[in-house]
Amino acid sequence: MTVTAVEGFVASGLSCGIKSNGRPDLALVATTDGSPVTAAGVFTSNRMTAAPVQVCRDHLLATGGRATGVVLNSGNANAATGAAGLADAERMCEITAEALGCSPDEVLVCSTGWIGYPLPMDAITAGIGRVADFLNPAGGQAAAEAIMTTDTVPKNTQVDGDGFTVGGMAKGAAMLEPNMATMLAVLTTDAAVDPTTATGLLQGAVATSFNCLTVDGAESTNDTVLLLASGRAGPTDPSVLGRALSESCRDLAVQMADDAEGSTKTVFLTVTGAATDTEAARAARHTANCQLVKCSWYGQDPYWGRIAAQMGAAGIAFDPDTITIDYGGQVVYADGRAPEVNAEALAAHMAGRRLDLTVDLGQGTGTAEVVTTDLTHAYIDENMRTS
Amino acid sequence: MTVTAVEGFVASGLSCGIKSNGRPDLALVATTDGSPVTAAGVFTSNRMTAAPVQVCRDHLLATGGRATGVVLNSGNANAATGAAGLADAERMCEITAEALGCSPDEVLVCSTGWIGYPLPMDAITAGIGRVADFLNPAGGQAAAEAIMTTDTVPKNTQVDGDGFTVGGMAKGAAMLEPNMATMLAVLTTDAAVDPTTATGLLQGAVATSFNCLTVDGAESTNDTVLLLASGRAGPTDPSVLGRALSESCRDLAVQMADDAEGSTKTVFLTVTGAATDTEAARAARHTANCQLVKCSWYGQDPYWGRIAAQMGAAGIAFDPDTITIDYGGQVVYADGRAPEVNAEALAAHMAGRRLDLTVDLGQGTGTAEVVTTDLTHAYIDENMRTS
Repeated sequence: MTVTAVEGFVASGLSCGIKSNGRPDLALVATTDGSPVTAAGVFTSNRMTAAPVQVCRDHLLATGGRATGVVLNSGNANAATGAAGLADAERMCEITAEALGCSPDEVLVCSTGWIGYPLPMDAITAGIGRVADFLNPAGGQAAAEAIMTTDTVPKNTQVDGDGFTVGGMAKGAAMLEPNMATMLAVLTTDAAVDPTTATGLLQGAVATSFNCLTVDGAESTNDTVLLLASGRAGPTDPSVLGRALSESCRDLAVQMADDAEGSTKTVFLTVTGAATDTEAARAARHTANCQLVKCSWYGQDPYWGRIAAQMGAAGIAFDPDTITIDYGGQVVYADGRAPEVNAEALAAHMAGRRLDLTVDLGQGTGTAEVVTTDLTHAYIDENMRTS
Repeated sequence: MTVTAVEGFVASGLSCGIKSNGRPDLALVATTDGSPVTAAGVFTSNRMTAAPVQVCRDHLLATGGRATGVVLNSGNANAATGAAGLADAERMCEITAEALGCSPDEVLVCSTGWIGYPLPMDAITAGIGRVADFLNPAGGQAAAEAIMTTDTVPKNTQVDGDGFTVGGMAKGAAMLEPNMATMLAVLTTDAAVDPTTATGLLQGAVATSFNCLTVDGAESTNDTVLLLASGRAGPTDPSVLGRALSESCRDLAVQMADDAEGSTKTVFLTVTGAATDTEAARAARHTANCQLVKCSWYGQDPYWGRIAAQMGAAGIAFDPDTITIDYGGQVVYADGRAPEVNAEALAAHMAGRRLDLTVDLGQGTGTAEVVTTDLTHAYIDENMRTS
């Protein structure tokens, strides 16, 4: 169920002293034999791109999509750190490359944590030597634990394909918004795939998973999803591999929503009947990011008025009289009015950990789904002070 | 300091039984002599337009911008109520017109409160007769009180122009977002102005005041700003009248932010140095509506990392190394790093009721300001259940 569930990869994780509380904060994922394999990445579109994101892009370009390892730290995002931060990210790759016996270009780097503080490079330098020593075929879980920030549980996945396997790990509990989130994910597979195909498949998988997840509308500076493909299982039908990657990403995205800061509900919000898929996605996201709607979910209140108002404010075309709103199979609004509902069944659904909300706009065949969360007292507690 | 501070207008407000707690819920503003005067309106762009908004638009079109009175109720928004809601809004105008002795087209109507429930028309019909009986030249305060929903204080304004006066009242404490808010405002003036000019001036005033206010990113179905101009003070330079209207609207907008649901901070967020004013506005709004940033304000935390990340995610062009972030005159981020600050002065500013946050993007001359609020436990308490 981890990145090391896949033939050809080793990993490890430990504490090197970035986090003041002594929890694990440094992880390494690498190929078992130290040789480079196919690598692909999808990154944040935030203009304040963090240094490690820039370095990953540069390295994938320089190698034509090959990598031997990924070094990841939590506790410090190395973002908004200027030229010094860029040099630190490059230095992390150099030290890792020395330990792995590869070229620095063949190392990718991810950081997550506080924005705007210089990395403690002495601790990291010493830590990379140690984390490389601990690389082992059962180290995926330790790696997943070492990339956690406000996550309360590590997030791993495994999807068994047709003669190949996809493994993965991810972190992310807030600043979660499409394109993508304060999230890192590393996927591994033993399927054989060329870098160009791998990049396309990974983009597709991200589009239908992480990019459908929104917790608080805050897009981060460091979002990164990486794929390493060892090829040990031989060639695979790209569409089959693509489906397995999508399934892995979706599994990790839902785990992130379930573990989102302070959340008590994971909400699967589907918009159907929009004029286009794009309009459906716009309406879904506009509603999922509404503070008032999120408060209603927290209060287990199926009040559809706020849902309808958000749909109306989403900047898309529809007839207000054709909108239907459904919570868990109970229609709470249709034909311009609130019909009779099975109050007991509705209350039971609203009290659950997961809510299914479907809004049909009655215009066309456009559909979209977002996975989101409620807004709670605990979210505020967790975010009102950074120190 | 009210709508009746202006020569030529009377008003009144009382409880007619829409609100179950017995608080005032019906208001009337009318011309003193029962004759129609110049009228203009600016309305929500929400697709789920409430019935009273549709009726206002129709009536202003039918009369060419003339009105004798405005009837307003709180406690029920008459929104998402279909054809029956539209008939109810028209009926409110007819009953008011009978009481005022004018044509129904010369009456404008506003509703605010819960979405999606039919108006209690028996109570409203009886109430309109009574509220018309109470019309008086000192009734502005009673009218302002009768349009409150979750507002804790009535909101009034008065701006003395060059030989004329602008008076006004407004309500709004949540679902506040540009274009416009769950807000109603009625302005009066004794300046003489034709309907076309009045509409243009009102649009300009709204653009630089209510449309710069955002509390929770939720745009409502009922937002309406109306202007009645009696002409008793004679002709006025339109630009002078425009400035007075802007000042009135700004005063009411800041009062709304100060009284926003559960808020402990009113934040004046200015973006300068953007490529264009439009990009500045986009960046300002994207940041003002960020839950994480709002939580920081609540926690009196000047953490600039979240501000920078939101600027980066706003979809505008700038160089991350040229961004400067300033709280109350203390630069907390510049030249790619956090400089030394006067910690005592910064803490004192962050502890105040009002925060001044300026972000300079270092690109050009584009500027924008938004007025917004923090996100608090009390906001959640107020919004997690509708019943």
